[in-house]
Amino acid sequence: MKILRFLEDQKERWGIFKNDSVMEIIWEDEVPGDYSFSGKEFSLDNIKLLSPCAPTKVICIGLNYRSHAEEFQFKLPAEPIIFLKPSTAVIGTGESIYLPAQSQRVDYEAEFAVVIGKKARHVSAAQAYKYIWGYTCANDVTARDLQPQDGQWTYSKSFDTFSPIGPWIETEIEDPYQLEVVGLLNGVEVQRGQISDLIFNIEELIEYISGCMTLLPGDVIMTGTPAGIGQLNEGDIFTVNIDQIGKLQNSAASE
Amino acid sequence: MKILRFLEDQKERWGIFKNDSVMEIIWEDEVPGDYSFSGKEFSLDNIKLLSPCAPTKVICIGLNYRSHAEEFQFKLPAEPIIFLKPSTAVIGTGESIYLPAQSQRVDYEAEFAVVIGKKARHVSAAQAYKYIWGYTCANDVTARDLQPQDGQWTYSKSFDTFSPIGPWIETEIEDPYQLEVVGLLNGVEVQRGQISDLIFNIEELIEYISGCMTLLPGDVIMTGTPAGIGQLNEGDIFTVNIDQIGKLQNSAASE
Repeated sequence: MKILRFLEDQKERWGIFKNDSVMEIIWEDEVPGDYSFSGKEFSLDNIKLLSPCAPTKVICIGLNYRSHAEEFQFKLPAEPIIFLKPSTAVIGTGESIYLPAQSQRVDYEAEFAVVIGKKARHVSAAQAYKYIWGYTCANDVTARDLQPQDGQWTYSKSFDTFSPIGPWIETEIEDPYQLEVVGLLNGVEVQRGQISDLIFNIEELIEYISGCMTLLPGDVIMTGTPAGIGQLNEGDIFTVNIDQIGKLQNSAASE
Repeated sequence: MKILRFLEDQKERWGIFKNDSVMEIIWEDEVPGDYSFSGKEFSLDNIKLLSPCAPTKVICIGLNYRSHAEEFQFKLPAEPIIFLKPSTAVIGTGESIYLPAQSQRVDYEAEFAVVIGKKARHVSAAQAYKYIWGYTCANDVTARDLQPQDGQWTYSKSFDTFSPIGPWIETEIEDPYQLEVVGLLNGVEVQRGQISDLIFNIEELIEYISGCMTLLPGDVIMTGTPAGIGQLNEGDIFTVNIDQIGKLQNSAASE
């Protein structure tokens, strides 16, 4: 099932995308939880998609593909390297990534993302699947030239619009380890990673992160980017494609 | 004026602390904004204080006192070093800091904190004062032994309860640069810093951070800790005192 958020008639709404159509849903109480259909149906062409959830935090994993760690000649990490992107950086598909004046080099990073569905604290890897709402595409946009100066990766990765997520949450992936995440710059493939190649897999990440902090429904874990990262220039369109999920597409614009 | 949040009769409420008494207020619309008094008055002894705001993000500054940078033999930073603590780490005064099983060394870090009152993006240092709601005390609790292994400071500083903030927001400080932040371990002074000694001052921090990300009302900037950091053991009580603001007091408990 493909769950999405959208803006229509100046109101934020939730919907399910099926048979080329968006059916509006109304949550009974918790999100996610029980819902009913409002009876309203929309065409994707007539609505503005939002990020498919409004995370209180986005937790990112650094160097989680062997290939990407090697392109930076980094040693493989012994434990997950985590950092946070603020909620103010989140945008949906179709929105612009604004290139900040402070940076001469903003990079795309195509990623496979996990969306949390249930409050999670001290969850074991074996139980992790119960806390997953679904999966989506993400882009861990990074001002590469601002990254080394502070040691911490926060500043270079926290600019407004630097956290595209979407287009929707796919809740019915049976085996995420069969998926591939592909990054395309202006339609040309530049990144490809197998989710089965993650150094720390989905369940290990949920155990590690929830052993530190409470994960809330709608929180997003960006699992890391494969090799092939590169620069975004004004006017570029970057697409993150995961076949069984969909396409997250954003253009780069000067601020 | 001292603005606080508290729990009474299982409801989150806002109040103003004056003449040893808490008067409940009701916000008209935005927080902060216009408000009226509910007419209810409480004694501090009969209510449970919460963190005085519910930040969407806590932005911390590393090594912002010469003295603390020197105790780690770190080079003084050329630009602010920023990192984020998640909203799930925030607690108020009187709540326990839980020492996680993963760490053998959890440290206190007494800090002076700025609370944002108005949505801020690309704010100049000269205009920064317009976006400040007030000031409070904070503790940037850190699992010191987990800090070096990941390079990033996120994991070691993001555990639940690692972000005590309070007791309230003082909105009527004329000159914050006359303040001192003092840390006391079981009543004995261990840290003392002059806000006038910050390497990057309040206005510079707001310009730098808002040049990257949108700051929202209630977001908190922890401005860094002075020299004298040290370990918290089970049963310890750590107090952050800023004379014109108040005391933030938390005990350490095993998880």
